[in-house]
Amino acid sequence: MGLVTSEDLFPVSRLAAVQEATARSGLDALLLTPGPDLRYVTGYDAMPMERLTCLAVPASGEPFLMVPRLELPAAEHSPASRLGVEFVPWEETDDPYAQVGIRLGAVRKVGLADRMWAMQSLRLRDAMPGAEQTLAGGVLRELRMRKSPAEVAALREAGAAIDTVHAQVPNFLKAGRTEREVGKDIAEAIIAAGHATVDFTIVGSGPNGASPHHELSDRIIQPGEPVVVDIGGAMPSGYCSDSTRVYCIGEPPADYAAYYAVLQAAQQAACAHVRPGVTCESIDAAAREVIADAGYGDYFIHRTGHGIGLETHEEPYIVTGNTELMEPGFAFSVEPGIYLPGMHGARIEDIVVCGEAEGERVNLSARDIVII
Amino acid sequence: MGLVTSEDLFPVSRLAAVQEATARSGLDALLLTPGPDLRYVTGYDAMPMERLTCLAVPASGEPFLMVPRLELPAAEHSPASRLGVEFVPWEETDDPYAQVGIRLGAVRKVGLADRMWAMQSLRLRDAMPGAEQTLAGGVLRELRMRKSPAEVAALREAGAAIDTVHAQVPNFLKAGRTEREVGKDIAEAIIAAGHATVDFTIVGSGPNGASPHHELSDRIIQPGEPVVVDIGGAMPSGYCSDSTRVYCIGEPPADYAAYYAVLQAAQQAACAHVRPGVTCESIDAAAREVIADAGYGDYFIHRTGHGIGLETHEEPYIVTGNTELMEPGFAFSVEPGIYLPGMHGARIEDIVVCGEAEGERVNLSARDIVII
Repeated sequence: MGLVTSEDLFPVSRLAAVQEATARSGLDALLLTPGPDLRYVTGYDAMPMERLTCLAVPASGEPFLMVPRLELPAAEHSPASRLGVEFVPWEETDDPYAQVGIRLGAVRKVGLADRMWAMQSLRLRDAMPGAEQTLAGGVLRELRMRKSPAEVAALREAGAAIDTVHAQVPNFLKAGRTEREVGKDIAEAIIAAGHATVDFTIVGSGPNGASPHHELSDRIIQPGEPVVVDIGGAMPSGYCSDSTRVYCIGEPPADYAAYYAVLQAAQQAACAHVRPGVTCESIDAAAREVIADAGYGDYFIHRTGHGIGLETHEEPYIVTGNTELMEPGFAFSVEPGIYLPGMHGARIEDIVVCGEAEGERVNLSARDIVII
Repeated sequence: MGLVTSEDLFPVSRLAAVQEATARSGLDALLLTPGPDLRYVTGYDAMPMERLTCLAVPASGEPFLMVPRLELPAAEHSPASRLGVEFVPWEETDDPYAQVGIRLGAVRKVGLADRMWAMQSLRLRDAMPGAEQTLAGGVLRELRMRKSPAEVAALREAGAAIDTVHAQVPNFLKAGRTEREVGKDIAEAIIAAGHATVDFTIVGSGPNGASPHHELSDRIIQPGEPVVVDIGGAMPSGYCSDSTRVYCIGEPPADYAAYYAVLQAAQQAACAHVRPGVTCESIDAAAREVIADAGYGDYFIHRTGHGIGLETHEEPYIVTGNTELMEPGFAFSVEPGIYLPGMHGARIEDIVVCGEAEGERVNLSARDIVII
């Protein structure tokens, strides 16, 4: 688990807070299947699967965890065992959906884990025909957006881990290798750096750098090409890393260096704008303005960032229209980009946590183009 | 991509077959978000995300792919570009759910990707209030269960890769190390063996081996203990590996060796029973009978297996009550287990493909206890 303990990250008191928030929201129950919502509430890192594992948190009354019998020992060994909720094991030939419905009784409105699979949400719908389904995210976002000191420590730990991977990228990235070969070395380094999973390895060389979510191809990297490397994974704590740096095999083209300097200023401006009380969209605007003023506005084709925690992408989103006010503990990416289709592109990404007075970046590697 | 090409794995003709199956099933459209269903139909390995990517396959009329603008280049470079379907990009501030509804028009019944997140299924429900939601799996299972020769080749490739990882486990597994330390080495080896992702690393030492889905703990492995190692990942092709072997640090306890021999006979009996025309449940029964006859019936607490392909767990399930008849191309795990709570456990798992006359195992490492 690294520097942060499971007890600190997933305090036992959280379940009561979630139950209160459920009651306040007018929902009768939350239904949480494996994924980030369940992990946030219980600390239980259950694998999403066709067999139903589901924590039911009624607005009043006792929560219970429906769990396949063969998962019972794993659940009992997980942090969920500290919560004092009843574990209800079901057998291979039982109908656990019906059992959830019967136990909850007459409920009118339930909140489903945002990532619940249709395979399960539709079966719960059929088992509880009187219950309107909505998203648990509406209840949990208020809690999940405000990271505790332990969660911030876990994000710092993830940031430090991915920084060490970026430090190794010059060893992997050579002209004549394919993006896929480089990506495989990066994936191994992500695990070696202490991540539990590799979530994405974007290696966008030359024109592929102009596609923000390009992943890996068999394209051979050429001398003189800029390469966008955007990588991340989840630590054993569950908390995610995500950082982008730009590399160049030799000196970059002159036009590239010019717009990279604009991008660097934009990313700096957005990070410097972070403080409690500003809107999420104003952080986006701080980056966008610098890029637009330099004439590259049409080439910055995505929002400035996304929240991060137990998910790589979660609330708050740093995007036009999001008037939510920053608070201490909000954690998100600041990752403006400039993309020239058919030519090349650039993006600089750090994870930033809003503190009491200003933002703190958890990624600390230099933000200049790394010349290889 | 290894030995198997994307063109062979995801033939262009598949979309028409899916559209015909959709029409036959009485659905008006399939709605496929990123995940195994979308990948099966298009070859597009899009990352599941909060931004909507959705292939709409109407029972009649033109399919289209709703795609975030920043994902458009990735989609255009993916195998989905071969299909001749319209790509409909949406901007960061658009409502893509409404757009899907408007484009499809009046539909009464839609099939959602089995793993579609509630975040998306509920928004599609609200955008298309007249459309009853059901699972796309009902349409796709008939196709996905019957693996093509290219898919079987991809499963063989995945099987060979995980076999090389098992061959290295004796280098990692030592008394005095924790399960987590061993698991980290295995995860690195899974990537080094050519997998694109690590999906699970179960290292169940001593009593933890009695919990079938135990993953990793900080428990220190002791001399004389049996250790259940169940590991798998997805290859760049998308096809998954999954294999379990048992290791022992020194000679196993005498009672352990006795029930391991029963387990080995049960796993062999189930594999030998595989052929076209037998029911899925009869393969489960073939393993269960051997274990029950030896008096361990109460300690085999799960089904014998699950289908495998683009998902680690998919149809067909090898479980009591599944009367589906085996056909050539069905691919699934055969993994009986015996678990003595508080003491130790054992499981032997191979992936088996039903051929024209008999089953073919894609995992070929020896099935004896590996003494370290």
